[in-house]
Amino acid sequence: MSERVLAGTIQETDVEKEILLKGWVQKRRDLGGLIFIDLRDKSGIIQVVFNPEYENALAVAENVRSEYVIEVVGTVVLRDENTINPQMKTGTLEVIASQVKVLNKAKNPPFLIQDETDVSEDLRLKYRYMDLRRAPLQETFKKRHQITQVVRNFLNDNEFLEMETPILTKSTPEGARDYLVPSRVHPGEFYALPQSPQLFKQLIMMSGFERYYQIARCFRDEDLRADRQPEFTQIDIETSFMTSDDIMEMTEQMMQKVMKEVNDVEIELPLPRMPYQEAMERFGSDKPDTRFELELIHISEVVANSDFKVFQSAIENGGKVALLNVKGEAANFSRKDIDKLTDFVKVYGAKGLAWLKVEGAELKGPIAKFITEEEKQGLLTSAGAEDGDLLLFVADKTSVVYDSLGALRLKLGKELGLIDESKFNFLWVTDWPLLEYDEELGRYFAAHHPFTMPFEEDFEKLTTNPSEVRANAYDLVLNGYELGGGSIRIYKREIQDQMFKVLGFSQEEAEEQFGFLLEALEFGAPPHGGIALGLDRIVMLLTGRSNLRDTILFPKTASASDLLTDAPSEVSDAQLTDLSIQLNKKI
Amino acid sequence: MSERVLAGTIQETDVEKEILLKGWVQKRRDLGGLIFIDLRDKSGIIQVVFNPEYENALAVAENVRSEYVIEVVGTVVLRDENTINPQMKTGTLEVIASQVKVLNKAKNPPFLIQDETDVSEDLRLKYRYMDLRRAPLQETFKKRHQITQVVRNFLNDNEFLEMETPILTKSTPEGARDYLVPSRVHPGEFYALPQSPQLFKQLIMMSGFERYYQIARCFRDEDLRADRQPEFTQIDIETSFMTSDDIMEMTEQMMQKVMKEVNDVEIELPLPRMPYQEAMERFGSDKPDTRFELELIHISEVVANSDFKVFQSAIENGGKVALLNVKGEAANFSRKDIDKLTDFVKVYGAKGLAWLKVEGAELKGPIAKFITEEEKQGLLTSAGAEDGDLLLFVADKTSVVYDSLGALRLKLGKELGLIDESKFNFLWVTDWPLLEYDEELGRYFAAHHPFTMPFEEDFEKLTTNPSEVRANAYDLVLNGYELGGGSIRIYKREIQDQMFKVLGFSQEEAEEQFGFLLEALEFGAPPHGGIALGLDRIVMLLTGRSNLRDTILFPKTASASDLLTDAPSEVSDAQLTDLSIQLNKKI
Repeated sequence: MSERVLAGTIQETDVEKEILLKGWVQKRRDLGGLIFIDLRDKSGIIQVVFNPEYENALAVAENVRSEYVIEVVGTVVLRDENTINPQMKTGTLEVIASQVKVLNKAKNPPFLIQDETDVSEDLRLKYRYMDLRRAPLQETFKKRHQITQVVRNFLNDNEFLEMETPILTKSTPEGARDYLVPSRVHPGEFYALPQSPQLFKQLIMMSGFERYYQIARCFRDEDLRADRQPEFTQIDIETSFMTSDDIMEMTEQMMQKVMKEVNDVEIELPLPRMPYQEAMERFGSDKPDTRFELELIHISEVVANSDFKVFQSAIENGGKVALLNVKGEAANFSRKDIDKLTDFVKVYGAKGLAWLKVEGAELKGPIAKFITEEEKQGLLTSAGAEDGDLLLFVADKTSVVYDSLGALRLKLGKELGLIDESKFNFLWVTDWPLLEYDEELGRYFAAHHPFTMPFEEDFEKLTTNPSEVRANAYDLVLNGYELGGGSIRIYKREIQDQMFKVLGFSQEEAEEQFGFLLEALEFGAPPHGGIALGLDRIVMLLTGRSNLRDTILFPKTASASDLLTDAPSEVSDAQLTDLSIQLNKKI
Repeated sequence: MSERVLAGTIQETDVEKEILLKGWVQKRRDLGGLIFIDLRDKSGIIQVVFNPEYENALAVAENVRSEYVIEVVGTVVLRDENTINPQMKTGTLEVIASQVKVLNKAKNPPFLIQDETDVSEDLRLKYRYMDLRRAPLQETFKKRHQITQVVRNFLNDNEFLEMETPILTKSTPEGARDYLVPSRVHPGEFYALPQSPQLFKQLIMMSGFERYYQIARCFRDEDLRADRQPEFTQIDIETSFMTSDDIMEMTEQMMQKVMKEVNDVEIELPLPRMPYQEAMERFGSDKPDTRFELELIHISEVVANSDFKVFQSAIENGGKVALLNVKGEAANFSRKDIDKLTDFVKVYGAKGLAWLKVEGAELKGPIAKFITEEEKQGLLTSAGAEDGDLLLFVADKTSVVYDSLGALRLKLGKELGLIDESKFNFLWVTDWPLLEYDEELGRYFAAHHPFTMPFEEDFEKLTTNPSEVRANAYDLVLNGYELGGGSIRIYKREIQDQMFKVLGFSQEEAEEQFGFLLEALEFGAPPHGGIALGLDRIVMLLTGRSNLRDTILFPKTASASDLLTDAPSEVSDAQLTDLSIQLNKKI
């Protein structure tokens, strides 16, 4: 028999041909002396018919069950007109089997291999190899492959070299929690799995390679949220002698290519850019979803002298008052509905959610009585409010106003159907703060990482007013998700020294942890910068999945377990002894 | 100023053009009022001239030193005929600098950035970012990139999907020593870094993807030899429904493409194949270097009744006698030279190295007196020995004869210049033994891994004579190095159960460690097999480096340390407490 033919590729031009098929039994119907099998392989499905003319084949087919692996020789024929299945790509065709061989049997599967499934995710993860047979997951990983190749081809065409950085690296306490690996050869010492190849990619620039990329595995031992995994993959890029504009332009060309080649979507360049401050003020978010409006309206000035205590005290304490104008929804929100929204914003630290409904030219609601005529006019004008609108107010510390109204905006956007799901709205967020002050610990932290270059014009403020120093950093946002970000890096020792000082490192601490980097900066480090984009996130958005776990072949649960192989697991005492470690007594 | 131009790309057609250069100062010569700088970037080197016509630039250039990063604006001109440098690609050209700016300074480098260097490897590793600036290493990593892309393109064109398997996996005691990662969320439990994605790639086949590849990072916590690294990279491939012939053919096409596109070397297909047994008998090695002859000559039959005790007892004890005929070298090896060779084979377990020199029609040497005339004729005929040949004998256990003469063959091949270094001799070694018996532990071990399929015709021997069972496995050898290997895998539960049994696993142990695999075999596992090739090794052989460390961007030393970042290192008590582990007291 000749070469194997893939089920999904069979066409009407193949009619009369004798072919060899190999694959899985998707479905088997026994019509008494006539058996129909839907045979599935990686390309799709074809219907195979067993009839009494080939009795040996028919006899074998009688014992075949779902998910058996079989090999079939047969002839392609057109189906009877009344048995054509327009839902199937090969629905006008079937194969009359003359021979069949069972390559492997299958027990009754734990769940059916079909496009939609409602079995528990735990069961799907335990039998991941069954779950992955489902068409939507097959498609997801084909697309993941495609995305990766488009990215690589683009970067290869732009003279980038793909390079591998170590997985067994040095632990540095700055940043998230490291996964540690005890060293056997050096008792009491540990490697760390990299949270990103950040320092290595900078060292690659110092090695004179100028353009590096890697589809890099990264690790963070953090408590997992729905959209986090202990190991994840980023498209990691670093370049020498390029400005932040150069890097953003190149990155957006890359994403344009990905969108076109993978999803056949045209993205217009240049992508819009928005300073961090503007994003916060307009959308209450540093990764705004710009597919819909419902922007924050700032009314601190309008209510500066308000009789309403909540407004008053927020402003007096240096905070602000802002609102969302939920157009035309006044009648659709009961007091109970609004109570639920109030509970929602409390999660973000808001003490409450004030509201007003516009009825004709009047404002209605519990706080209406505090609003003067002048304030009313100011409000209506600022908010562009008309009859039927619902106004939702938060008055609080600035960060709380942004967080809570930003989150409320997204919630309402989704629930009211304001979002055009067919849109892919990319956006650069720029001009980030370099530092964040942690009130509790009484020290500054790097908003991105400690190697980010401040804008030259802000250098002076590093000593006088660190909070106001802006970073030469940029994040790429798609539909309200951060795809990733980057920056120009510090490439001069004196600036890096100063940065560590602002972050509260003593000279000794800086040397001990980052001495190799500080030294490398003194041996001809070129100006450099780069970006890192989350591949899993990109796959998720481009395949329309709602869950990062669906984009990772063998993902871990929220408790960082692999339900399929049962990792992590206990190991032998001999293994621990080899590593000069022991378990803590209390376990 | 316009776009930056790369130094190595400047051509005579650029003469008169004003260009912008950015790069490193390779060399600076001050001729008093005239300064020459060799400017280096990733593409190559161009000579830049500073003269008094541009005094500002000249003044800056006076303070510039080796490895400074500078930006130059200047005009391309032809060099005077007497200053042309034919050794340089751009040796007929230079750039007259009108402006120069120092982008970053450099301290006096720890060693010179030149093609050949004799500084210690430790110093080179500590300043790896300086070492990597040297042209031979720049070239190595360009080639590594190229090799990777050719492999990817080939596999992409053959419908393979690139897929990522986890790095945080389950520890399985079979095989080499695992690197372990303590789990914070599950106190007392550990992940292991994968020694290879073996089980995951098999699970990918059980997931119905049919064709998978990955440029995969692998980890082994073994004591390092010169050609081992704790983390290494393999081209990892797995396919469903393909035979071992299919896989070998596809792999050799891939390697043919790599050789052609990267090294412009034509490889003839199909590659030669040699059963394991033949490789051992002819070359004393399971990865023979076939670029030269000097094969083992087996003479047990000739000397079966020898008076020479050593021969006699080797044969009586079930061993054998074999020799190398070192053609025409009798006169060049003194007794002292041969003593050194004796010491060499002792490392491989040989008790000694007997020798004879052929002088005219006579045999000379200490054992000549034991050789009868009949044996002499037999020897000369078997060995094709002539006047002036040196015969070197090992008589011992078969494995010792192979190991010691195999190693001696390689040593002599190199030292006597028998090897044509321009050759790329690929070879498949096939028909491997499935199992190896460990005398000391009194049990069988899998020669490859426990998932390798035995030949069907040998199934029966699994219970009756396991040592004789051959595996459906194949190794790819290049110039005496194992590039990698693969096999058809066991895809039926009953065979896998039997395999674990032969390996001494109880049913419980097999279930505990590999239960997920055993179960997966019962849910419609397709016939599958694959291969894994060592990327680092391939890069080493294709770039003519002698050392795996030169092919890995940031390698570790023989004691698994990274001298650049100082990993592994001590971590804080808080980190250990988080992981519920402590150091052993004795440290």
